[in-house]
Amino acid sequence: MSSEEIAKAAKASFEESQLITSAERVKALESIRKTLEHRKAEILAANAEDLKAAQAEVDAGRMSESLLKRLDLGRGDKWDSMLQGIVDVAALPDPTGIVTYATELDDELELYRVSCPIGVLLVIFEARPEVVVNIAALAIKSGNAAILKGGKESNRTTLLLSNAISAGLAETAIPEKYIQAIQTRAEVASLLELDQYIDLVIPRGSNSLVRSIQNSTRIPVMGHADGLCSVYLDESAEEEKAVRVVVDSKIDYPSACNAAEILVIHESLLYTIWPVVGKALLRANVRLLCDPATLEALQSLSPAPSNFLSFVKPSTPEDYSTEHLSLVISVVAVPSLQAAIQFINLHSSHHTDSIVTESDEAASIFCRAIDSSGTFVNASTRFADGFRYGFGTEVGISTGRIHARGPVGLEGLVIYKYMMRSKDKKGHIVGEFGTGKKQFKHKRINTNLVPF
Amino acid sequence: MSSEEIAKAAKASFEESQLITSAERVKALESIRKTLEHRKAEILAANAEDLKAAQAEVDAGRMSESLLKRLDLGRGDKWDSMLQGIVDVAALPDPTGIVTYATELDDELELYRVSCPIGVLLVIFEARPEVVVNIAALAIKSGNAAILKGGKESNRTTLLLSNAISAGLAETAIPEKYIQAIQTRAEVASLLELDQYIDLVIPRGSNSLVRSIQNSTRIPVMGHADGLCSVYLDESAEEEKAVRVVVDSKIDYPSACNAAEILVIHESLLYTIWPVVGKALLRANVRLLCDPATLEALQSLSPAPSNFLSFVKPSTPEDYSTEHLSLVISVVAVPSLQAAIQFINLHSSHHTDSIVTESDEAASIFCRAIDSSGTFVNASTRFADGFRYGFGTEVGISTGRIHARGPVGLEGLVIYKYMMRSKDKKGHIVGEFGTGKKQFKHKRINTNLVPF
Repeated sequence: MSSEEIAKAAKASFEESQLITSAERVKALESIRKTLEHRKAEILAANAEDLKAAQAEVDAGRMSESLLKRLDLGRGDKWDSMLQGIVDVAALPDPTGIVTYATELDDELELYRVSCPIGVLLVIFEARPEVVVNIAALAIKSGNAAILKGGKESNRTTLLLSNAISAGLAETAIPEKYIQAIQTRAEVASLLELDQYIDLVIPRGSNSLVRSIQNSTRIPVMGHADGLCSVYLDESAEEEKAVRVVVDSKIDYPSACNAAEILVIHESLLYTIWPVVGKALLRANVRLLCDPATLEALQSLSPAPSNFLSFVKPSTPEDYSTEHLSLVISVVAVPSLQAAIQFINLHSSHHTDSIVTESDEAASIFCRAIDSSGTFVNASTRFADGFRYGFGTEVGISTGRIHARGPVGLEGLVIYKYMMRSKDKKGHIVGEFGTGKKQFKHKRINTNLVPF
Repeated sequence: MSSEEIAKAAKASFEESQLITSAERVKALESIRKTLEHRKAEILAANAEDLKAAQAEVDAGRMSESLLKRLDLGRGDKWDSMLQGIVDVAALPDPTGIVTYATELDDELELYRVSCPIGVLLVIFEARPEVVVNIAALAIKSGNAAILKGGKESNRTTLLLSNAISAGLAETAIPEKYIQAIQTRAEVASLLELDQYIDLVIPRGSNSLVRSIQNSTRIPVMGHADGLCSVYLDESAEEEKAVRVVVDSKIDYPSACNAAEILVIHESLLYTIWPVVGKALLRANVRLLCDPATLEALQSLSPAPSNFLSFVKPSTPEDYSTEHLSLVISVVAVPSLQAAIQFINLHSSHHTDSIVTESDEAASIFCRAIDSSGTFVNASTRFADGFRYGFGTEVGISTGRIHARGPVGLEGLVIYKYMMRSKDKKGHIVGEFGTGKKQFKHKRINTNLVPF
């Protein structure tokens, strides 16, 4: 099939599926889970082949060990949690069919705003093959059709996974082409042109993947390129909180997008709390890239930590725009809360930023003035996550400014439509309203039910 | 100032404005209204010059009469309603600072989702100079900075209007560069590149304007290019409702995006209701572009309406993808509701489509299966409008699938951020949660108040 045929089939499947009930979608998820369980052996065999090929790449120095690990579907409880993920998504509340606004415009004329799926999703991800199952489940649950493209390293595995998904769907009311998989970059490139069929692109992977997609399509893209989070130690910060929040934000999972990359310190703390925080970071093997003031303050430490000379370096301006994704943090001192806010708004990627403070006023100013999807007080930036926020699952984290921001749950995969109904015996026309004619009532209706 | 300086200044103003209260924004609107009132004579003088230049263009056949009329700020009650518009927007509820989700993650750890402005808007419109005031009011009310570009035909007027807006703002807490106006297409072209400063583009004007903008930026665009609305006469349609809804949808304001351009007729009505509807349309001077079945049925009319020969023509396939924006409608017969849905999903621009029916089942199927921002039952497509929906005012109508769809009120100019606060005496870190450790509580908090 050509990319255009794939995209057209996806749109047609989406349109066909509009009358399918939520219960049927849940049944489809169960059917997919069973088919996957049934085909476990052959899928893991294909995965073993992918792993073998990847091992050769690692041996040749062309692939990282960590990428290899992410490919492995048989590792630990990965297979079981993949299947459990389907059950969990099935159990979430249906995000569609929710009335979010209802009003009586006139006698016998009612307007309802009802949540509904977006349409066709194009989801592009790397390495981890279980994402194909995860995203298929989210798409089906929310009533969206999807086209999925995995990393080439896991092509054998994702092909069998998507075959199993199709086989599972074949036994249900969901159209056959509802979830389709593609395997080449050329197909992605052509699909990114087809904005008449594809409604939303969701890239899940490296910065460079996300940026290259953002640069090559008119279709809306939901996701984040950078995760440059920062922690600010306010004048009134308490030492223990400062140490705990900074260390956890940096070391809990350094390669995650919600790990802290920048530490901003009020200059009044340079010779009090900062050396304590700095020592704790060094103890955790974190390298410190410091501006002159924070560097000088650290040099006052006596005795100097054993890794001081190799782990503490002067920073360059670029360090404050770099997502380290490793045990490295850029440190800077500022003269005021105002300066901290300006520094963070300029350098952070508007993902998540945290203040450590005992002042309610500083907390309030920081949370309102920092222009990021998450603004935290005395809490680790690592809390920015759909599961931790209570969304049950996560489509991704968005640093965009429209539609959905921050960790995105199923709600991010729906939009709404307006349904209007006249029960008047002559129907309703606009020509009867206006000056000297009928006036709109705009009387809110309290209901959660779609009337038709 | 260069385009980059303008965009940077807008972003800086936006960031500076985050601590400004809603009450101060309302005061700024009142200050702008007063300044405009004060400068009425000079603004209308500039408008007269624009009109004079435009009249010369009309005389030379390079501009339409209707465009000329739209330029005229002194016409009828236009000036007064422009000022009243500011008062109305000021009186609307503040769309920011609304808590839409609040949950207790752990003892002393709370998460709030709070609505907030998007950032910097770039609004591009044509002809009608009062739009500059209208959009400035919406932007200020919702806490967004804005860069405005009007049509070149109204450059003299919009310059004075935006000078008055700046002068009004100068007496308030809002930063000076919060609302900026630009005058050239070259500036627009450079601004469309600056996605690091500009967060949303709102084009208000012709199809070609919207399309050219959608094609030339990575910044999200909110609006609609086409308004191809349709009315479907179902098998069970009642004659009087059919006539009223079709005629009103077509003739109430033919150049509006919510006017009907396509009439889809169940074939069982070809020799019953269709001729009556056809006659009513012809009486209203509507030209009919008919497929063979609807054409043949009309030919059975006896006596034939006087304008039959000149007003009824066979349709071409392109007619069903054409936004006529005039007293013309494309007509087609279909064998079933299913066929009508497929036809409309394929041809409509997913703006607003209406069914005339006496069947609850058909109404329900139509409203769910038609993939448009508005799906109506026995009501004119012309009801698709922010004021009629009860939003008080309208930013525009969106046929996009994310963020906002259909008529967009102030809600379309906000997004949200997540604020998290730990009141624990040691602060909160992620490392303390997980298997064998603390579990998340995810206990919903019922509140409408931002806690800090």
